[in-house]
Amino acid sequence: MYENVRVVLIETSCSGNIGAVARAMKNMGLNNLWLVSPRTDWNNAQAVARSAGSEVILQNARVVDSLSVAIDDCSFVAGTSARSRRIDWPCLTPRACAEKIYAFSAGPQPNKEQIALVFGREDRGLSNDELQRCHVHVFIPANPDYSSLNLAMAVQVVSYELRMAYFENNPEVASIGQIPGRDQSDWDDEPATMKEIEMFLTHLEQTMTEIEYYDPDNPRQLMARIRRLYQRCRLGKMEVNILRGILTATQKATRKTVQQ
Amino acid sequence: MYENVRVVLIETSCSGNIGAVARAMKNMGLNNLWLVSPRTDWNNAQAVARSAGSEVILQNARVVDSLSVAIDDCSFVAGTSARSRRIDWPCLTPRACAEKIYAFSAGPQPNKEQIALVFGREDRGLSNDELQRCHVHVFIPANPDYSSLNLAMAVQVVSYELRMAYFENNPEVASIGQIPGRDQSDWDDEPATMKEIEMFLTHLEQTMTEIEYYDPDNPRQLMARIRRLYQRCRLGKMEVNILRGILTATQKATRKTVQQ
Repeated sequence: MYENVRVVLIETSCSGNIGAVARAMKNMGLNNLWLVSPRTDWNNAQAVARSAGSEVILQNARVVDSLSVAIDDCSFVAGTSARSRRIDWPCLTPRACAEKIYAFSAGPQPNKEQIALVFGREDRGLSNDELQRCHVHVFIPANPDYSSLNLAMAVQVVSYELRMAYFENNPEVASIGQIPGRDQSDWDDEPATMKEIEMFLTHLEQTMTEIEYYDPDNPRQLMARIRRLYQRCRLGKMEVNILRGILTATQKATRKTVQQ
Repeated sequence: MYENVRVVLIETSCSGNIGAVARAMKNMGLNNLWLVSPRTDWNNAQAVARSAGSEVILQNARVVDSLSVAIDDCSFVAGTSARSRRIDWPCLTPRACAEKIYAFSAGPQPNKEQIALVFGREDRGLSNDELQRCHVHVFIPANPDYSSLNLAMAVQVVSYELRMAYFENNPEVASIGQIPGRDQSDWDDEPATMKEIEMFLTHLEQTMTEIEYYDPDNPRQLMARIRRLYQRCRLGKMEVNILRGILTATQKATRKTVQQ
C-alpha cells in the first residue's frame, strides 16, 4: 500500500522529530523517507529512541541535498503549508489530498506514479520557492490562534488520512478486520429477535408486578420507558438470557419470601 | 468549540508526552486536560518544551487519582484501544467517534453533555476494567504489524477528527476561510470565460503558424492536445492575458526578424 509515496522532510533541525516521523509513517504503513539537507547529525540515539522500533525506516532513509533531487521522478507533489501566501495555489485538506493520492496510486497501473509529501522546517515551514514546486498545498485546519503543528504530528495526520482513504475505498478490506466498523452485527453475541425481547419484557413486567414495583392498574409510562431503553440497546441473545436469569432468580427469591 | 470535551490521560510515564498532548490539543482547539495519576513529575521543563507555547493547558490541567473522578460527570466516554479484547465492545474509528461527539456537542443544548476521551499508558494502554468503563472504544486503524502510536500522536489524530467533524458539519465556517477548500473559484484570478479561452487558442494557433511550428494543412492532433491541456488547467483571466502577452511578443519578435 502506497509504496509509491514518499515523505520528504526539508532541513529538519531536531533528530527526535525525524525518529517520531519514522514511527508515525510505520504506524500508518508508509516506508519511504527522504531527508533534504537535515540540519542535524540526525541518525542518533534520540532519533532511534523516538522511532520506537521503526529504525528500518531511518536506515533506509535517502539523504539528498536539494528538494529537486528528492522530487525529480515524482509526478505529484503535495507540500504542507499554512495559508495566506502571496500567490494563491491549489490547496487541499489532508483528507482531500489523500483522496487524490489514493486515486493516483490505485489506478489501472497502481504504484507507478511517484508521489511526494513534502514537509518543511520546524520553525519556518517551506519557502515560497519550495511551495511553488508543489502541485498542491496541504493545509491542516488547525486552531488559527495556534496553528503550527509539530512536524511529526503533521506527518501523522497526513499519513493517517492516506490510510483512511485506502480503507474508505476498500470497504471489503476494512470489513475483514482492518477496521472494526463494528456494531452489534459482528459481535460475539448474536442480536436478539423481537420475539425474544417481547418475552423478556413480559417477564420483566410480571416480575415488577410481583415485587410491587409496578402496578398494572396504574401503569403510567413505565413500560414504555423500559421498552425504549432496551430497544435502544439492541440486546443480544446472551444478554436477554442473562436478564431473564436475573428475573427468574428475583421471582424465586421473592416467592420464597412471600411463602415464609 | 468542544468546551465540553476533555482529554483524560491515565498514568502517563513521560512528561514530554504530556507536553506534546497539550500542543496537539491546542492545535486542534481543545482545552481541557485531565491527568489520572501521572507516573512522573510531569509539569517540568520537558513538558513545557514539548508543549511549545500551550503551557496554559498544562497549567489548567486537573490531576486526579482515579479514572472515576475524571469521568464521573461525563455522559459519554470514549477510550482508545487496540483490538481483540476478550469481550467485544462498541468500537469506532476516530472519524466515526468524532461524528458522534459532534452530534452530542452541537445539539439543541450544546456543550451541556460532558464528554471524555480517555488515553492509556504509553506501554500498556488501558486496562480491561478501564475499557469497560467506556461507552465506545476508539480504534485508530494502524499498520497491524506496528500498531502502537505514540500517545500524543493518538491524541492528535482523535482531536484532528473532532475538528474535521466540526468543519464538515459547518461548511459555512469552512468556506469563510477556516479551511481553504479551494479550487480556482476563490482565487486571486477570476476564471477565464470560454470566449477568452477561444480567443487565446486562436491567437496561439496563428502564432504557431507564423513561427512554423504548426501547419494548418497538416494539423494532426496538435490543437486538440493543446486545447485539452489548457482546459484542464481552468485558466484565469490574468493567466490568459499573460499567455497572450507572450504570443504578442513572439509575433512582434518574429515579424521583426522576418522583415530584416
